[in-house]
Amino acid sequence: MKEIMCFIRQNKVNDTKKALAESGFPAFTCRKCLGRGKKSIDPDLLNTVLAAGELPLSKIGENLTEATRLIAKRFFTLIVEDKDVDEVVRTVINANQTGNPGDGKIFVLPMLEAYTVRSGEPTIEAF
Amino acid sequence: MKEIMCFIRQNKVNDTKKALAESGFPAFTCRKCLGRGKKSIDPDLLNTVLAAGELPLSKIGENLTEATRLIAKRFFTLIVEDKDVDEVVRTVINANQTGNPGDGKIFVLPMLEAYTVRSGEPTIEAF
Amino acid sequence: MKEIMCFIRQNKVNDTKKALAESGFPAFTCRKCLGRGKKSIDPDLLNTVLAAGELPLSKIGENLTEATRLIAKRFFTLIVEDKDVDEVVRTVINANQTGNPGDGKIFVLPMLEAYTVRSGEPTIEAF
Repeated sequence: MKEIMCFIRQNKVNDTKKALAESGFPAFTCRKCLGRGKKSIDPDLLNTVLAAGELPLSKIGENLTEATRLIAKRFFTLIVEDKDVDEVVRTVINANQTGNPGDGKIFVLPMLEAYTVRSGEPTIEAF
Repeated sequence: MKEIMCFIRQNKVNDTKKALAESGFPAFTCRKCLGRGKKSIDPDLLNTVLAAGELPLSKIGENLTEATRLIAKRFFTLIVEDKDVDEVVRTVINANQTGNPGDGKIFVLPMLEAYTVRSGEPTIEAF
Repeated sequence: MKEIMCFIRQNKVNDTKKALAESGFPAFTCRKCLGRGKKSIDPDLLNTVLAAGELPLSKIGENLTEATRLIAKRFFTLIVEDKDVDEVVRTVINANQTGNPGDGKIFVLPMLEAYTVRSGEPTIEAF
């Protein structure tokens, strides 16, 4: 079993949800986060992002420091079987790839144990 | 040391906090998230959930896609010693188990190092 | 590659962002969370915290249980190369260390794979 963390654009949430559900991976959580990558943000690019509806949360003071401005992103977490990692990664890439900086990052982490609270039992098969 | 991630119902936060503190594990974080499991949501079940106060965040457009509707959940993170993993898992299950779908999931992940910022030192004992 | 999770005071977000960017680690996400450590909160300390602007989210009922009151914190996630883990940990400690309880915790977790969505390729070098 593995944990897959996906940081994506906020306007790609619905596409990602649909793509995952259609590929047979409908179980996940989605959270808000603020983030940035390695590159400083080009003002022209920022305007494009703003025009596309990816609005930085300008009311929150903490993301307004010019040197390290953060962008509102969405963060998906999925837990999948080892054999499904590659298919899930490809599904998320296909749903999110525009070819522009800011498309996102996907990380795969090890997972040791999983439990279903309803039954109180360890989960062995996919969930 | 291990990281324990618990996705639970939002109306179980106080019970979970009390159960963990009473069991000697008072250190954790709690965050909001949206999520769903493998099953599509039965409309009858959804009405029960709504009546119980687990209201989907219907103002946020991204969780309104009918095929993959997400439910507001709460997400606890705890870092515990290896010897305490099973007791923490049991404590969370006991505080959250209603026997109905949606009770939640618990995941155990490996952890390599931990530091206390106040002292600047690696943390060796439980915290 | 490793994941570094940092739970810090919310009034240290800008200092942490600047310190990380100046040290050559500008890529991260920042999220809100509620949390607490092992110690019960001393009312005097709580008043100090309140005066310092670290306001508990008192509108959210779930964090008002007296026995396990939670404090609003910020949660940074960075993914870095193995050789950079120690420098990132030291940078975060230096930016956040006041010597008082509540300075925060840093955790280092294993990471197996990383992908850049834009290119669809695994990420090998630092990002």
